[in-house]
Amino acid sequence: MSPSDRKTGNVIATSNNRLELIIDAAARLFDEKGYNATSTQDIATEVGLLKGSIYYYINSKEDILFRIIEESHEGALKAISTVSHLDVGPLARAYSLVKTHVRVFHDDRVKHSVFFKEFRSLSDDRKEIIRGTGHAYSLFLRSILEEGQVAGLVDKRLDARMATSGIIGMLNAMSFWYQDGGSWGPESIGTQFAEQVVMGVVSEEYLAASGGRNALIQNICEELE
Amino acid sequence: MSPSDRKTGNVIATSNNRLELIIDAAARLFDEKGYNATSTQDIATEVGLLKGSIYYYINSKEDILFRIIEESHEGALKAISTVSHLDVGPLARAYSLVKTHVRVFHDDRVKHSVFFKEFRSLSDDRKEIIRGTGHAYSLFLRSILEEGQVAGLVDKRLDARMATSGIIGMLNAMSFWYQDGGSWGPESIGTQFAEQVVMGVVSEEYLAASGGRNALIQNICEELE
Repeated sequence: MSPSDRKTGNVIATSNNRLELIIDAAARLFDEKGYNATSTQDIATEVGLLKGSIYYYINSKEDILFRIIEESHEGALKAISTVSHLDVGPLARAYSLVKTHVRVFHDDRVKHSVFFKEFRSLSDDRKEIIRGTGHAYSLFLRSILEEGQVAGLVDKRLDARMATSGIIGMLNAMSFWYQDGGSWGPESIGTQFAEQVVMGVVSEEYLAASGGRNALIQNICEELE
Repeated sequence: MSPSDRKTGNVIATSNNRLELIIDAAARLFDEKGYNATSTQDIATEVGLLKGSIYYYINSKEDILFRIIEESHEGALKAISTVSHLDVGPLARAYSLVKTHVRVFHDDRVKHSVFFKEFRSLSDDRKEIIRGTGHAYSLFLRSILEEGQVAGLVDKRLDARMATSGIIGMLNAMSFWYQDGGSWGPESIGTQFAEQVVMGVVSEEYLAASGGRNALIQNICEELE
C-alpha cells in the first residue's frame, strides 16, 4: 500500500465514521420524536455539524431513514445466515431463529424500532426493496415450519404462513416494550420466547415421543450445543 | 317526552353521528397517510364539511386522535369484560381472550391500527391515560397466567409478565399485516393463535393429564361451549 493509498483509505474511513455518526444520531431522533418531527437541522445539531455539511454525506432526510432501515434489516439477514448454517432439525432451527432474532434486536434496538415505526415514511420504491427483505425472512421461518410439518415434528393442522405471521409479529412488537437495561436481558427473553414458539407449533406425536415439554426443550438445547 | 325534548334528542343524535363520521374519516386518513401528514382541512374535505365547521365538534386534531385511540381501547376493555364473566379455567380464559381480541381487532381494524402507529403523537397527559388501559389489559392476561401457574396448568418456570408481553405483542402486531377480506378471517386466525398461545404456556403435567395437544384444545373448546 502506497502512502497515498493509505491516506485515501483514512479519508474514506473518517467519512464512513461520520456517516455512521449521522445515521446513529438520526435513528435516536426518529425513534424519540418521529421522522416527520425531526428536521435535517436537528440531526446536524445532534452530531455538531452545520446543516449544509450533512449534505456532503447524504442527499436527503429520507436517504438517512432508508439507511437506518437497511441496516436494521442486515441484522435480520445475518440471523437467517447464522441459522441456515446449523446442522439441526426444524424445531431446533425455529428455536435458534427466535433466540438469534431477540439478540440481533437487542444489539440494534433503536434502528429496529425506527423500522417498525417509520416504514411507511419511505418512498414507494424503497418500501418495495425493504418488503423484499421482510418477505425473505418470513419465507425462511415458514419453510422451517413446513419442513417440520413434512417431517411430522410440527402440527400439520396449523397454517404455516399464519403461524409465521404470529411469531414474527411477537418478535417485532418488542419495539414497543423492550427497554435497554430492563430487568430482562436478551438471553432470558430469547429463551422463553423460543420455548413458547416451539411448544406453540410442535406436533402431538413428536411431543409425546420426546417425553413432554421439558424433555423436548432440553433435547433442542442439546442439539444446538 | 315533550316535543322539545325530542327535538333536543334528535339534534344530539345528529351531532353525535356527525362526530362519528369525522372520527371514522380521520382514522382512515391517519392510518393511510399518518397523523402528521393529515391536516384538519383533509379531514373536513373527507366528510364534506368546511374546516371551520369541524371545530364545532372537536377542539383540535389531537382531540380526534385521542377519541380514535380511546374507542380502540374500549374494544379491549369489552374483551376483558366478556372473558372475566366466563366460568372456566385459566387456560380456557386465555384461549378465549386471544380469540376475542382477534375478533375485536377485526371489527375495528382501522382504529386499532392508528393506535399502534400514532400513540406517540398524543400529548404526555393523554399517553398516561391510554397507558393505564393498556396496563389493565396486560395485567388481566398476566393474572390469568399466574392463576394457571398456581393451579398447575401453566408452566411455573415461565415469567408470566414476559409471556404476556409476547402474547399481546403477537396480537398487536396484526396491525402491520392484517388485511380486510384477506384469505384468513378473524375466526381462523383467532383459533390458531389461541392454540399456539395455550400450547406455549401449558405445563408438562397438565398437558400429559389432558392426553396431549389435540385433547387439550378439544377440552378447552368444550369448556367454552
